[in-house]
Amino acid sequence: MTDLLDISYPIIQGGMQWVGRAELASAVSNAGGLGILTALTQPDPDALRAEIARCRAMTDKPFGVNLTILPTTSPPPYKDYLDAALDSGIRVIETAGRSPREFIARIKDAGGVIVHKCTAVRHAVSAERAGVDAISIDGFEAAGHPGEDDIGGLILFAAALMLGAEGINMGTRFCATQEAPIHDNIKQAMVDASERDTNLIFRPFRNTGRVLKNGVSDEVIRIERRPGGAEFEDVRPLVSGARGKAALTSGKIDDGLVWASQVMGLIEDIPSCQELIDRIVRDCRKAIDIGQAAFSG
Amino acid sequence: MTDLLDISYPIIQGGMQWVGRAELASAVSNAGGLGILTALTQPDPDALRAEIARCRAMTDKPFGVNLTILPTTSPPPYKDYLDAALDSGIRVIETAGRSPREFIARIKDAGGVIVHKCTAVRHAVSAERAGVDAISIDGFEAAGHPGEDDIGGLILFAAALMLGAEGINMGTRFCATQEAPIHDNIKQAMVDASERDTNLIFRPFRNTGRVLKNGVSDEVIRIERRPGGAEFEDVRPLVSGARGKAALTSGKIDDGLVWASQVMGLIEDIPSCQELIDRIVRDCRKAIDIGQAAFSG
Repeated sequence: MTDLLDISYPIIQGGMQWVGRAELASAVSNAGGLGILTALTQPDPDALRAEIARCRAMTDKPFGVNLTILPTTSPPPYKDYLDAALDSGIRVIETAGRSPREFIARIKDAGGVIVHKCTAVRHAVSAERAGVDAISIDGFEAAGHPGEDDIGGLILFAAALMLGAEGINMGTRFCATQEAPIHDNIKQAMVDASERDTNLIFRPFRNTGRVLKNGVSDEVIRIERRPGGAEFEDVRPLVSGARGKAALTSGKIDDGLVWASQVMGLIEDIPSCQELIDRIVRDCRKAIDIGQAAFSG
Repeated sequence: MTDLLDISYPIIQGGMQWVGRAELASAVSNAGGLGILTALTQPDPDALRAEIARCRAMTDKPFGVNLTILPTTSPPPYKDYLDAALDSGIRVIETAGRSPREFIARIKDAGGVIVHKCTAVRHAVSAERAGVDAISIDGFEAAGHPGEDDIGGLILFAAALMLGAEGINMGTRFCATQEAPIHDNIKQAMVDASERDTNLIFRPFRNTGRVLKNGVSDEVIRIERRPGGAEFEDVRPLVSGARGKAALTSGKIDDGLVWASQVMGLIEDIPSCQELIDRIVRDCRKAIDIGQAAFSG
C-alpha cells in the first residue's frame, strides 16, 4: 500500500464532509500518511481546483481526493469534480457511497489509483471485479455510513495488519487533531465522549449514519421511532448539510449533526497529525514485538 | 493467561448452552486450550457433578465450568451448581450474564480462578474491582448476548493479541468441530451461513441475543416489530430452552433458536478441535511474522 500510494506509512485519512480540507490533508501527508480532500465539501468543481492548489502550497507530499457518491434526487456534478481533481494532477481518488464503476475508466486513463471504501464484503468483491486498485472497509463502529449489515471491523493498526490488511483508514481520530479545521469545542467533545456516545440515524431509511449523540441526533431518532413511522422528509430540516457544517464551525454541539465513530472511546487527546501518526506506528511496532516475544518464549 | 489457567495456548472455549458438554470441553482441553462445561446445560447440580466426572475420564488436562447468571423470575440454584463444580475440583469458573460479585468469595476460598465474560468496558472495570482474575470481552458480532451497546470486538487471535488481549474466547467456531455434540446439519448450516445470516432478537426487551437466521428467529422478530410493540410473553413459546435444544439435536434448522455469531462468515469447514487450534496458532504466528517483516523492510 505504501508503494501503491507513494507514502511512508499505510495510514489514510478518509474523506470527511467539511473536515477534509487543505489544513488537515496537508498535515496528514506531511506526517507520512495520505491526506484526502473531500470533493463535495467544496461548493463547485472550480472551488475544488482552488482547494487542491491551496493544499499543494502546504505540502509537497502526495494527497488524494474523496468522491462520495450518495443516493440523492439531485446529484452534484460528480464527473466535473473528478475532472477537476485529475486535471489538477491528483493521482489517488477515494470513492465511497455507491459503486465507482462508471468513473473507473476516466481515473485509469489519467493514470490514477482508486481506493474504494465500502462496508460489506460483497461490495468489496464487486468493486474489485470492476477494477479498483484497493479496498478500504468501514466497520459497524465507523462514523458516517457504516452500512446496513452491522458487521464490525476494527480500529487499530496492528490488529488490522494481523487480519491481513495492508493499512488503515482513519476518520474520526483525525478530527481530534490540532490541524483539523473544526471548532475546538467539537474536538474536546470527541475527547470527552465514550464509545457509547454515538447515535445511529436514518436506519429506517436503509441509509444508516453514525453520528455524535447530541440534541439533534436524539431528536432525529425520536421522530424516526414515533408510532406509525417516519419519512426522510420529516427529519430533513434537522439534518441539512448546512446544519452539519454549523456545529463544526460554531462549536455549539447542538447546532447540527456531527459524524463520529465509536473510536471516540479511545480518543484522549488532541495531538498534531505528526504526533498522532508517529504514535500509531510506534505502538504498532511495540504490539508486534510483544506478540513475537510471546511465541518465542 | 496460559500461566493463570495452566494451558498451552490462550484459547478458551466459551460456555455455550447445550453445546458445552464433556465431548467438546475435553476435546478443546486435549488440544491445548481450555474447554468449558456449561453448568446450566445440566438439569441439576448432581448432573453437573456427573458431567465433570465424565469429562475428567476423557481428558487429564484442566477444564472449567461456565456459570451464566441471567435475569429470570425463577433463578436456578446458582450456588449449588457452583458448589458442585468447586467440590469436584474445578479451578476455573467462567462467569457471564450478570456481575459475579456474590460468588467471588466462595470461588476464591476454594482456590479458584474467575474469568468473567462481559460486553462493555464499564462492566469489565466493575468486575475487575470486584476481584475477578481475568476479563473476556464479547463483541457485538458475538452469539448469545452481545450486550446493548453495539460495540464491536474482533474475532481473530493475532488481532486480539495486537489489541493487548492475552488470549481469545471462542464459541460459535467450536460448534463447527467434529467433537461438538450437535447435529451435523447444524454444523453444516454454520459452514453455509455468511456473516449476514444472524438475527438480533429480544432487543426491545433490552436483552439482545444474536442467533442463526431461521424460521423461528424470523418469526420472533416479526412479532417484536408488530405495531404497538410486544412483550416477552408474546415470544416465549417460540424461544423456550427445550426448543433451542431441539434444533441442535434433531438437526432440523427450524425446530428452535440456534445461537451463532457473525464469525460464521469465516467458518468454512468442520475440523477436529486439535486441527482447529493448531491452525489458529499457526496462522497467528504467520501473521505476526508478516507484520514484523513489514516493519523491518
